[in-house]
Amino acid sequence: MMTPPLGDIAHIGHTQLFTPDLDASVAFFTDFLGLTVNGQDGDTVYLRTYDDYEHHSLVLTAREQPGLGRLALRTSSEEALHRRIKAVEESGGTGTWVEDEPGLGKLYVTTDPDGHEHALYWESEHYRAPDDLKPALKNQPQAKPNRGVGVRRLDHINFLAADVLANAEFQQNVLGARPTEQIRLDSGKIAARWLTYTNKSYDVVYTSDWTGSEGRLHHIAFATDTREDVLRAADLAIDTGVFIETGPHKHAIQQTFFLYVYEPGGNRIELCNPLTRLVLAPDWPLVTWTEEERKKGQAWGLKTIESFHTHGTPPVA
Amino acid sequence: MMTPPLGDIAHIGHTQLFTPDLDASVAFFTDFLGLTVNGQDGDTVYLRTYDDYEHHSLVLTAREQPGLGRLALRTSSEEALHRRIKAVEESGGTGTWVEDEPGLGKLYVTTDPDGHEHALYWESEHYRAPDDLKPALKNQPQAKPNRGVGVRRLDHINFLAADVLANAEFQQNVLGARPTEQIRLDSGKIAARWLTYTNKSYDVVYTSDWTGSEGRLHHIAFATDTREDVLRAADLAIDTGVFIETGPHKHAIQQTFFLYVYEPGGNRIELCNPLTRLVLAPDWPLVTWTEEERKKGQAWGLKTIESFHTHGTPPVA
Amino acid sequence: MMTPPLGDIAHIGHTQLFTPDLDASVAFFTDFLGLTVNGQDGDTVYLRTYDDYEHHSLVLTAREQPGLGRLALRTSSEEALHRRIKAVEESGGTGTWVEDEPGLGKLYVTTDPDGHEHALYWESEHYRAPDDLKPALKNQPQAKPNRGVGVRRLDHINFLAADVLANAEFQQNVLGARPTEQIRLDSGKIAARWLTYTNKSYDVVYTSDWTGSEGRLHHIAFATDTREDVLRAADLAIDTGVFIETGPHKHAIQQTFFLYVYEPGGNRIELCNPLTRLVLAPDWPLVTWTEEERKKGQAWGLKTIESFHTHGTPPVA
Amino acid sequence: MMTPPLGDIAHIGHTQLFTPDLDASVAFFTDFLGLTVNGQDGDTVYLRTYDDYEHHSLVLTAREQPGLGRLALRTSSEEALHRRIKAVEESGGTGTWVEDEPGLGKLYVTTDPDGHEHALYWESEHYRAPDDLKPALKNQPQAKPNRGVGVRRLDHINFLAADVLANAEFQQNVLGARPTEQIRLDSGKIAARWLTYTNKSYDVVYTSDWTGSEGRLHHIAFATDTREDVLRAADLAIDTGVFIETGPHKHAIQQTFFLYVYEPGGNRIELCNPLTRLVLAPDWPLVTWTEEERKKGQAWGLKTIESFHTHGTPPVA
Repeated sequence: MMTPPLGDIAHIGHTQLFTPDLDASVAFFTDFLGLTVNGQDGDTVYLRTYDDYEHHSLVLTAREQPGLGRLALRTSSEEALHRRIKAVEESGGTGTWVEDEPGLGKLYVTTDPDGHEHALYWESEHYRAPDDLKPALKNQPQAKPNRGVGVRRLDHINFLAADVLANAEFQQNVLGARPTEQIRLDSGKIAARWLTYTNKSYDVVYTSDWTGSEGRLHHIAFATDTREDVLRAADLAIDTGVFIETGPHKHAIQQTFFLYVYEPGGNRIELCNPLTRLVLAPDWPLVTWTEEERKKGQAWGLKTIESFHTHGTPPVA
Repeated sequence: MMTPPLGDIAHIGHTQLFTPDLDASVAFFTDFLGLTVNGQDGDTVYLRTYDDYEHHSLVLTAREQPGLGRLALRTSSEEALHRRIKAVEESGGTGTWVEDEPGLGKLYVTTDPDGHEHALYWESEHYRAPDDLKPALKNQPQAKPNRGVGVRRLDHINFLAADVLANAEFQQNVLGARPTEQIRLDSGKIAARWLTYTNKSYDVVYTSDWTGSEGRLHHIAFATDTREDVLRAADLAIDTGVFIETGPHKHAIQQTFFLYVYEPGGNRIELCNPLTRLVLAPDWPLVTWTEEERKKGQAWGLKTIESFHTHGTPPVA
Repeated sequence: MMTPPLGDIAHIGHTQLFTPDLDASVAFFTDFLGLTVNGQDGDTVYLRTYDDYEHHSLVLTAREQPGLGRLALRTSSEEALHRRIKAVEESGGTGTWVEDEPGLGKLYVTTDPDGHEHALYWESEHYRAPDDLKPALKNQPQAKPNRGVGVRRLDHINFLAADVLANAEFQQNVLGARPTEQIRLDSGKIAARWLTYTNKSYDVVYTSDWTGSEGRLHHIAFATDTREDVLRAADLAIDTGVFIETGPHKHAIQQTFFLYVYEPGGNRIELCNPLTRLVLAPDWPLVTWTEEERKKGQAWGLKTIESFHTHGTPPVA
Repeated sequence: MMTPPLGDIAHIGHTQLFTPDLDASVAFFTDFLGLTVNGQDGDTVYLRTYDDYEHHSLVLTAREQPGLGRLALRTSSEEALHRRIKAVEESGGTGTWVEDEPGLGKLYVTTDPDGHEHALYWESEHYRAPDDLKPALKNQPQAKPNRGVGVRRLDHINFLAADVLANAEFQQNVLGARPTEQIRLDSGKIAARWLTYTNKSYDVVYTSDWTGSEGRLHHIAFATDTREDVLRAADLAIDTGVFIETGPHKHAIQQTFFLYVYEPGGNRIELCNPLTRLVLAPDWPLVTWTEEERKKGQAWGLKTIESFHTHGTPPVA
């Protein structure tokens, strides 16, 4: 396996979700998750988590169907951006330059083999909070939210894919992601793989789409400060009518403490907390979970909920 | 020492605070602490914590000076109310019947020796949440607040007093409170005493007023669900300009995890968390802390802050 | 319904469990839960939680079969003890005086209608920690455990019973417990009732035994300081081979955060955390949950696990 | 400023401390912090935190005086190791190859300008837990400790230095660390600088040594899973006689939740928790704190304790 220079992708920047009910979705992300609106452009609303240094962490766009728009990845330099574009094109991919997001320079939009849009960019204005959102501490971009859960950052994205391995290899060989964990079925098929661009144990995940569809979204996840925030979120969810799919509980894979809810547009949203766990080993060996091991359920024995295998939201139409 | 029937006072009901800036104080209690306004009558606003089963937990009344109005105590029955009134009057006290608070029947208003108003009552309508505040679980009076700290209940009150012992004995002999902890100076003087009507380790405290004034307030305290809520509160405080006096830290006495802030009217407010600690022993021996022991500071060694001995807010004028 | 004087039972004192593997059970309670052995007498071992002021919180006795021995209840005075004995005998019950537990005076042993042994007592020596277990703070009986979960206290007991209502009425009418919550089936049958002697929202529970057996135990529960302790306990459980039945999650009824495990003798043990929730209302209205409401599962939607309805451990043979 | 390739240093590997009381120090790290002994060689004991994938996280060596031995840094590849050695030598430094630690290949030992030993290495055997320490989850090197705090990893080191800037520049220019925060006095002098090799917000810190000494240690820090673990640690500390210098509280700089204790040999040890905070921005602007800002104390207003400026432990003699 070719080893590209590590570190050209600095981190995930933001994602775009489509929603058939923009107002309700904006209310969910602001009132329940505690994000802040940072601009609107027609049917598109830009939102940010309090510890994001960039202009936005999430883009919500009105559409007839829910689903995933763009995943944006910031590179670690201008050169790194061009190295990755070259890798895309050498691997047979193509892309288009756009300049359509506030606070960011040009984005190079391409797709993974399954068709999920990836936008690579380098130029990014650091966020400066207006007076009413100024934090007390200068090493924090914005005041901690006083409402809802108050999530810290967009943490990761989980793509449904027809062929997990092909997409994971795109991440590894073209974008330079490192695989950290995977599920291998008895048939030898890779049913899911977790990959990272950083010292976080994962930034992107591919999960096998049982329906055989392409380009769908399993979920996006926001990191909370603490596990207690996840528990508090579950209480806020039931008292405000947010649908809980499963959790709070702890994943065996990656050990993430989780809560899955649906936002009103229909997209699955995870609240996640990894405690202080990181992958620091430069030679971390890919951890493989077997079918047998998966039957044990989550870390503490909770069986995986049925809808977890079936509910997904569509791709860019 | 005479032992009155235990349990005639069921629990503290609510307190009244005066504030020179009613709007700012209401904003503090709703936005920062997460209380809900449940009615207003001229210059008086009624507020409630989410787990209070009664009409209100706090009364805010506009006045030129901050300070303490009424502490209201609910009795455990109609008979208990009359037994306690009889005890007040047998001890030489007097009182007045008023019927001036929404959701409550008649209150018998008397004072402790230091002049702090105590209102005893039995009749109390149980709160029924309006639709927008309905909780998911029927064993909870109101939805968990989606903003601010979201404190559970008014937890205790700490009175400054010229003569701690005389007031503590009023609580014990007339109201039936049980003393659980105290500070005794080398001179023999009782500098503070903690008392309870319940299985909580304290509901009311008397602390020696170094200024020799009478009827002043040291602080009122609200209980959070978790210690993490107290830590989150400290972050919210600095980001919203709430003045932190001291904490978060842990008291040696009563082991309470605490954070002291000032509300905009000038009254000191504690956020407290006792974990799951209770006093269940019916023969709990009064724990006495010496001057020497107090010099060690709080549970983990934090020295007591100077203003803690000097800042208080005045009584009913 | 007759209303006996509230408060004659001060709190649950301790329980006795039988175990076919005494050594393994002692290891579970000390290494995993963090209890301390405080004496042994032949096949019986006395253990205590760190915040118990009495000699022991749990008695483990070797037997061929697991199951429940005695539940001991401390009264609030000598007079209260005699009032309750009188009530037992007036209700047609009988009892026997024994004096067979270290640190305690005489116990009056009787049974509830289902045959679960209840031992009432007043005399109880307060625990004095030996030097190696001395706490730093004098308002705490014993140093906080440095191993395992470090549970604070024995919190409650859940009895299986053939006839829930008859037993609950024994608690209410004879012992003076207050009912706080219950499940009523569509048939009108009471399937479970939660009762308290204190400001805790429950101390004893009766749950319908689907097998129709009498005198069996559903579980005993220990309270942790925090919810985080319950989460940590789940991690310690999987890493030390302790069987997790269900949890961590949150009950709808009583809102307890829970984790159910089996100790090696076969008895079900709950780790529970109620946050700072208490029942302070002297006129708390019994909360009734319907079959329909129970179908929603636990507070956050978790379905009740099947074994919860079937696994129980036998009574005193 | 020259920008070396980022990422040649993968992470801090372990540190070596000297102690005049080896047995007491080993007991502190195992019983209180929950580390595990993984080998001994004469007067040197190797210990590991539960989430370290390498042979050891800490080396304790008996010496007359406490202080710092070696800081070991793992590179991200064999080539990276040689690039960094070349950089050391091009900058005028020298080093020695040693092969004296179990589980590791050759280490290149050099010093920073202040004389603190740095050992660079690539070869490292991944740890395989013996049966009694096997974890339940295969993505974790070792079972979670059942005693003490159970810290996750060695988190960072804080060096005292006569000239902060010179040493920070060595880290940046020679080792490729990125500076994230610093204190600049009104005189223009840099009084402290925080630097990172990873997405953690800091791995090494230089703090001005007021005594003008060289090569001394301010502290080493271990990361806990949660803030609750730090609070629990403070309770365990007071009950087991561990000296607390300051905390638990929250730093303004880096926002770390902290507790400082002294191990029995005299070295200062921090327990730290950064929540889920990371520095992901590849162009993170160095945050500078002024003297004025530092006067505000820690994040929540706690004043910095005096001994923090004076207590340090000596270098390699």
